[in-house]
Amino acid sequence: MNFSSKLIEEAVEAFAILPGIGKKTALRLVLYLIHQDKDITTNFANAITNMRQHIKQCSNCFNISDDTICNICTNPSRDKQTICVVEGIRDIMAIEDTGQYKGMYHVLGGVISPIEGIGPSDLNISSLLQRIQTEQVKEVIMAISPTIEGDTTIFYISKQLTDVEVNVSTIARGVAFGGELEYADEVTLARSIVARVPYKK
Amino acid sequence: MNFSSKLIEEAVEAFAILPGIGKKTALRLVLYLIHQDKDITTNFANAITNMRQHIKQCSNCFNISDDTICNICTNPSRDKQTICVVEGIRDIMAIEDTGQYKGMYHVLGGVISPIEGIGPSDLNISSLLQRIQTEQVKEVIMAISPTIEGDTTIFYISKQLTDVEVNVSTIARGVAFGGELEYADEVTLARSIVARVPYKK
Repeated sequence: MNFSSKLIEEAVEAFAILPGIGKKTALRLVLYLIHQDKDITTNFANAITNMRQHIKQCSNCFNISDDTICNICTNPSRDKQTICVVEGIRDIMAIEDTGQYKGMYHVLGGVISPIEGIGPSDLNISSLLQRIQTEQVKEVIMAISPTIEGDTTIFYISKQLTDVEVNVSTIARGVAFGGELEYADEVTLARSIVARVPYKK
Repeated sequence: MNFSSKLIEEAVEAFAILPGIGKKTALRLVLYLIHQDKDITTNFANAITNMRQHIKQCSNCFNISDDTICNICTNPSRDKQTICVVEGIRDIMAIEDTGQYKGMYHVLGGVISPIEGIGPSDLNISSLLQRIQTEQVKEVIMAISPTIEGDTTIFYISKQLTDVEVNVSTIARGVAFGGELEYADEVTLARSIVARVPYKK
């Protein structure tokens, strides 16, 4: 692409490093900003730099946080005896959006995947085991993706907890609410028959 | 969405002002930047602020430019007697990418559109007429969108040039190269029959 401007070219290349944004989209975004007030671009750049400079990882649960300890860990009204184990911070946002859960979290930072070379030591597992033993945790809820890697991770963590007095549960798996049976994949459907629950009359 | 972080929330809202970027995409971009080196975010923000602060409009042809006069207008090897009239700066980039044109440009900044309240005085038409008269221009090529508004604009400009000794042409319209006739719309196909050209044997 011929930009005939070094400034435009640099801005387009800056946008194009972002995932899912190619040079054409980047140009569209840059031209949009050119036609807006200068303050809008300044505020945009400041918000992003500020975020990247000051964002921290909660030293307790590994959630992203504005402070050393995140506002879920410091919230006194949350149940400290339940830990929900998730792969990433986006899972915390999704669960928080449901408004159904009032316990603590622990971010693993991924799942065990021998193919990608990710072993238990690459994940925040030892800190989880330590938290379970020191914080008098009663239940650990595994909110991990229902994949082979996810199941391996759950199995590995539960093995580490055999001698620890704590309940381990996984989030329910089955056909999605509002989904139609004929479109459910066969593994999900087979599992949901095996794991059928008594109907409360 | 529950971000549990003011910094993330502000960065997401900053990205979400851009066209075609919703809150979910914005969050994906922010989380991508969190996992990159701090310098990448700083360079990204600097490139965009720098561009917005220093970008100018060429005072001759209204192209975007790093200087008061753009590098097409200052290029001594370009043909100063031909002006290609376009709607916007993206059209210049598209034509430059073809490598077929070595003349000058003039950006109108849009087309005449009574519905949107855009009249001739809202566009860079008077400066175009002045350039044609003072710069000994021999040909004006109208590279304007083949729409009703585009045709109106071409008609208006050519009317202003009736007493001026200059050739006015429009870019060729017809079926696109590589396109199939049966998929061409009927107006384009009808026009391309009316405007048929002798085949060079």
